[in-house]
Amino acid sequence: MTLIDGKAIAQEVRHEIRAEVAEWVAAGHEAPGLATVLVGDDPASAVYVGGKQKACAEVGMRGFDHRLAADTSEDEVKRLLHQLNEDPAVSGILLQLPPPPHIDGPKLTEEIAPGKDVDGLTPISTGLLHKNLPGLRPCTPLGCMELLKRHDVDLQGAEAVVVGRSDLVGKPISALLLQANATVTTAHSRTKDLAEVCRRADVLVAAVGVTHLIKGDWVKEGAVVIDVGMNRLDGKLTGDVEFEAASERARLITPVPGGVGPMTIAMLLRNTLQAAKAAAAA
Amino acid sequence: MTLIDGKAIAQEVRHEIRAEVAEWVAAGHEAPGLATVLVGDDPASAVYVGGKQKACAEVGMRGFDHRLAADTSEDEVKRLLHQLNEDPAVSGILLQLPPPPHIDGPKLTEEIAPGKDVDGLTPISTGLLHKNLPGLRPCTPLGCMELLKRHDVDLQGAEAVVVGRSDLVGKPISALLLQANATVTTAHSRTKDLAEVCRRADVLVAAVGVTHLIKGDWVKEGAVVIDVGMNRLDGKLTGDVEFEAASERARLITPVPGGVGPMTIAMLLRNTLQAAKAAAAA
Repeated sequence: MTLIDGKAIAQEVRHEIRAEVAEWVAAGHEAPGLATVLVGDDPASAVYVGGKQKACAEVGMRGFDHRLAADTSEDEVKRLLHQLNEDPAVSGILLQLPPPPHIDGPKLTEEIAPGKDVDGLTPISTGLLHKNLPGLRPCTPLGCMELLKRHDVDLQGAEAVVVGRSDLVGKPISALLLQANATVTTAHSRTKDLAEVCRRADVLVAAVGVTHLIKGDWVKEGAVVIDVGMNRLDGKLTGDVEFEAASERARLITPVPGGVGPMTIAMLLRNTLQAAKAAAAA
Repeated sequence: MTLIDGKAIAQEVRHEIRAEVAEWVAAGHEAPGLATVLVGDDPASAVYVGGKQKACAEVGMRGFDHRLAADTSEDEVKRLLHQLNEDPAVSGILLQLPPPPHIDGPKLTEEIAPGKDVDGLTPISTGLLHKNLPGLRPCTPLGCMELLKRHDVDLQGAEAVVVGRSDLVGKPISALLLQANATVTTAHSRTKDLAEVCRRADVLVAAVGVTHLIKGDWVKEGAVVIDVGMNRLDGKLTGDVEFEAASERARLITPVPGGVGPMTIAMLLRNTLQAAKAAAAA
């Protein structure tokens, strides 16, 4: 078994992006800019936003860190988003979710211009993904694909099983695997014999958010296992897969933490750069 | 084996729509209106458009039958679509594909307002489908689901296999089956052992457009088979499934012709009515 070192791969990607940004700027372009919008003072959200802004700065991108009071009205947030849509210095916009309860986060996200939707979560970005048209894809699914790519996992005709069907991870990763020519099964809480379904997977992606739902003996000998789960168990971060038992059978497996997690911000940076280049070409 | 009589079910649906339209009009609303736009004089396309307009009239809807010369510019078509978007008498708009080669059909389709996209094929409609948000779904996949529903096929946890991944049929039907809580596998030309994948299907949907690609012995005993194929073989219309051999094993199966085919227009009518009601509620 080989461990998929998401931390190291994310670092590699970030180095590449830094070089690409430097090249872009050297060619006379403005540095790409990422605007983050945080409403309220949820401490976890503040940490996430801080991490994204820091990552931005490290690769030479500009950051626009908008923090609004918890009682900001939906209309005010909408106005800010429209302003950022119009601002040529802003390549990508990210509305940190969840906002305070009086604000409909997913609905507000739809106000972000498709070309700046670096989270890739609006209906139009979702449509472009499923129709395989150019557009911005969600970051965590992109991160999973990048891990597979860096390990040269052959997806052509591979049996891929995705457990979970969230808009954020399960469904988009199924779409990306399908585009990579895998035969893709999407399984979920209503799946009748989840063990059997998992056992046929050459590539098994777990994205349900239930600690150790996927048992070690559900992993086919020689399979590749991507664990997107981020669950708390006795104060420790754990995945959806019984890691110890699964590693005895898997050929490649992501640990939690240090697997998929670090890839999300790396892919956000890549999306921001892609958005900047697409805007310049338009 | 029981035959799924698409012709009879489509007729049933059309009767229901006619009653619902009458009720809608009796309640003081305008009759829903379907605008079809045909560019050029492809005879097959003219027949399709004629069929849709006729079906419209039969259920008491208004038809707006726009026929443009083959040399109409993309800009002129775009202007017409925008005009139809603004016209309150028009509930649904359908741009008949394929247009003449100088016109980018799928691109032009994107000009149709999401609320009037009764073909359900624009990126935004695709996004709404995959995010399970309210919107208009593509007609042929809806027709397949309706056939399953009228036969009380239990999809909860069922193993569904969709062969084919087109934007028009394969991918949207996979999404609809997933929403109905089936465990969904999308297979295609790169699938390694298609026979084995098909054999695990409780519900098998064939949507590839290759005559008799799906062999009779790939059908699990007691499975439900939906054949979306419409292929010409020796001047006769045939499906993607070896019908004779498959019927010996299937519990329910659609014939070709007379299975899925007649459902498409019925679902187009239903979409038009749905669009009219949504517009009135907005």
